[in-house]
Amino acid sequence: MVGVWGYQPRWITFLEGRNKVFQEKQYLHLPGPTPVPPRVLRALSEPMINHRGPEFKELFEEITVGVQKTFKTQNKVLIFPAAGTGGMEAAIVNFISPGEKVLVASIGVFGNRFAEIAGRFGVQVEKIEFEWGTAIGAEQIATRLQADRDKEIKAVIVTHNETSTGVTNDLVAVRQAIGNHPSLLIVDAVSSMGAVDLRTDEWDLDVVVTGAQKAYMIPPGLAFVSVSARAWEVAAKCTNYKYYWDLVSAQKYSEKSQTPYTPALPQLTGLRESLKMIHAEGLEQTFRRHALMRDMTRAAMRALGLSLLAPDEVASPALTAVFAPEGLEANRLRKIAREKYNVILAGGQQKLDNRIFRVGHLGWVQPLDIIAVVAAIEMVLLDGGYQIELGSGVRAAQKVWLDRG
Amino acid sequence: MVGVWGYQPRWITFLEGRNKVFQEKQYLHLPGPTPVPPRVLRALSEPMINHRGPEFKELFEEITVGVQKTFKTQNKVLIFPAAGTGGMEAAIVNFISPGEKVLVASIGVFGNRFAEIAGRFGVQVEKIEFEWGTAIGAEQIATRLQADRDKEIKAVIVTHNETSTGVTNDLVAVRQAIGNHPSLLIVDAVSSMGAVDLRTDEWDLDVVVTGAQKAYMIPPGLAFVSVSARAWEVAAKCTNYKYYWDLVSAQKYSEKSQTPYTPALPQLTGLRESLKMIHAEGLEQTFRRHALMRDMTRAAMRALGLSLLAPDEVASPALTAVFAPEGLEANRLRKIAREKYNVILAGGQQKLDNRIFRVGHLGWVQPLDIIAVVAAIEMVLLDGGYQIELGSGVRAAQKVWLDRG
Repeated sequence: MVGVWGYQPRWITFLEGRNKVFQEKQYLHLPGPTPVPPRVLRALSEPMINHRGPEFKELFEEITVGVQKTFKTQNKVLIFPAAGTGGMEAAIVNFISPGEKVLVASIGVFGNRFAEIAGRFGVQVEKIEFEWGTAIGAEQIATRLQADRDKEIKAVIVTHNETSTGVTNDLVAVRQAIGNHPSLLIVDAVSSMGAVDLRTDEWDLDVVVTGAQKAYMIPPGLAFVSVSARAWEVAAKCTNYKYYWDLVSAQKYSEKSQTPYTPALPQLTGLRESLKMIHAEGLEQTFRRHALMRDMTRAAMRALGLSLLAPDEVASPALTAVFAPEGLEANRLRKIAREKYNVILAGGQQKLDNRIFRVGHLGWVQPLDIIAVVAAIEMVLLDGGYQIELGSGVRAAQKVWLDRG
Repeated sequence: MVGVWGYQPRWITFLEGRNKVFQEKQYLHLPGPTPVPPRVLRALSEPMINHRGPEFKELFEEITVGVQKTFKTQNKVLIFPAAGTGGMEAAIVNFISPGEKVLVASIGVFGNRFAEIAGRFGVQVEKIEFEWGTAIGAEQIATRLQADRDKEIKAVIVTHNETSTGVTNDLVAVRQAIGNHPSLLIVDAVSSMGAVDLRTDEWDLDVVVTGAQKAYMIPPGLAFVSVSARAWEVAAKCTNYKYYWDLVSAQKYSEKSQTPYTPALPQLTGLRESLKMIHAEGLEQTFRRHALMRDMTRAAMRALGLSLLAPDEVASPALTAVFAPEGLEANRLRKIAREKYNVILAGGQQKLDNRIFRVGHLGWVQPLDIIAVVAAIEMVLLDGGYQIELGSGVRAAQKVWLDRG
């Protein structure tokens, strides 16, 4: 068998059997979907129940409490059978009417996506773009809002954690930048929720959106939306087009602990189990674990001479974006990692395609998994002709862990 | 909270949450039970069936073929709801009558266990003991049998892979040592089957016993016994005490694809799935993978300055026994590994207690898992006050893997 790169990799025989046997023992280090714990997988397999019956009411109420704790909010968080992107659409069509203006601060692919969704629904989008790999400059938002004398800007839209670059924005600074301007603050927290501290009520975030397949440790299929009292007032008057994403309708149903249409039951029973795990570990401890894994990954990559996309001050605890070294394409590196070492890394998106690889370290990941991934990356680099000292990345990661204690 | 060693480990807070969340992501590196793949776990959960009905017949026949391939035999292998030790008892009470003599070649705990079982059933046991950490000297067996002019020795009993020391015996040499003596050759293959090559028919092994929870990658609960044509002749005349372990009865039932009493159905449906995986990887490839993990583990431990119990020539592909370093008790080392790093290592048994630790690398284990375990052991050594260079064990393991390709 001749390999896809035009030569015959000597390990192919080793792998053919291996991949059949170890499919379910992949080191899945994407920024989502993330690994799902067996107890959560088991909880997906509960018998179907009547979503208008008393068992669902109990499930709904238990989940609501657990989710509110992760959002740090008293708002009733609404849950849709959807990808996170659906939650983003809900965050537009319920709050911004056609012809109204929003300010989108974008630092990458998912900031741009929010702008695109708004545009599709007739919203006037003004976008402030920041260089990929950097965070939002809150002062630019402040300056723009101060210039908005007629209060035309109805919402500031920001990404908490930009999944395409591994940068976390400072939401407190954004809130302060808005100041007394009446604009809503709409937050994409899809890849940050549960991995990074986010205080919906304390930070006065009007609309917060997240998804299932990240730090919630459940499979894709749920979108979550939290709505502040002020945002509900706006929603009551919003004329944009919606049926599925109608939050007012969802809120009405939630008062009787139901959903407007059929909920995705397996993900909800899975979520009940994963919330038990999250709150057993403790949210603050979960954040510390994610920060530890970020710092281990970054120290290791630097020890191997690789460059990181994001600077330390804004580096995401959810994932790390790393430049492939000179002469080794990022996608080839990822291919070797998958085929030879059973390690799944994410690629770069759009203009970063084939230039970076992204190491997901959110959700059900423990520090020792990061060490295995680092060791694999070391071997991939050697395989790819890039000279490094074996074990040196691992050692750097170990040191960070030992120092953290 | 004060730690069990009389001081306060600084990581205890980190771990309290962690251990709740990562219970199901332990690095379980015992020589059994070994990790069970999710697809096998799912296969444990099939509905119960009538063990006298047609579905069971189909299950029985499918399993029989797969198990025969792992034993490399045409014998119909009999499967009991039991621990491996039950298979050992069956291997005594069906072939050796009270008052008859056997020669047990023991190199550790499990050799001694076979001798003890035989003794309990009125068998005269003559034991040749070899130093723990070494293999059987086949010439001593040859000498003893040549001296047995009256052919009083009815069986030579050997352990293929001694789990307490991590030593694999050479069964071909033992068979040759028996030569024309009419003694049966009874083999404990509990921890070798599927991890180490074993050719029941080609090597003329009369009785071979194994268990479920090793390289078969299924939970404990099954014992397997293969019986040669010659051994069946002996069994027909054997007068020892048995009901549950009556192989003649089991063999009769097996002719109609049934068992004499209720079989352990979950383990059997699990085995059907794991046999698919074993034969998809391919037995010879499975053996190569186990040998690779053995060699990675040994190179890593040596690079860390630790001493190995078994010499290279007889080192087991299933597990590696390692001496704890001066000043760090093996059981304390294991405790740190479990509590801080979520890595489960086995201890020493009997006279090796607290002197060695044992790294299991059999069953559903991939090379990258070994690297994570090695990195954890490095950190445990530092925690325990033993100076090593972080990453140096990992590097040694990586080199072995890269060289093997």
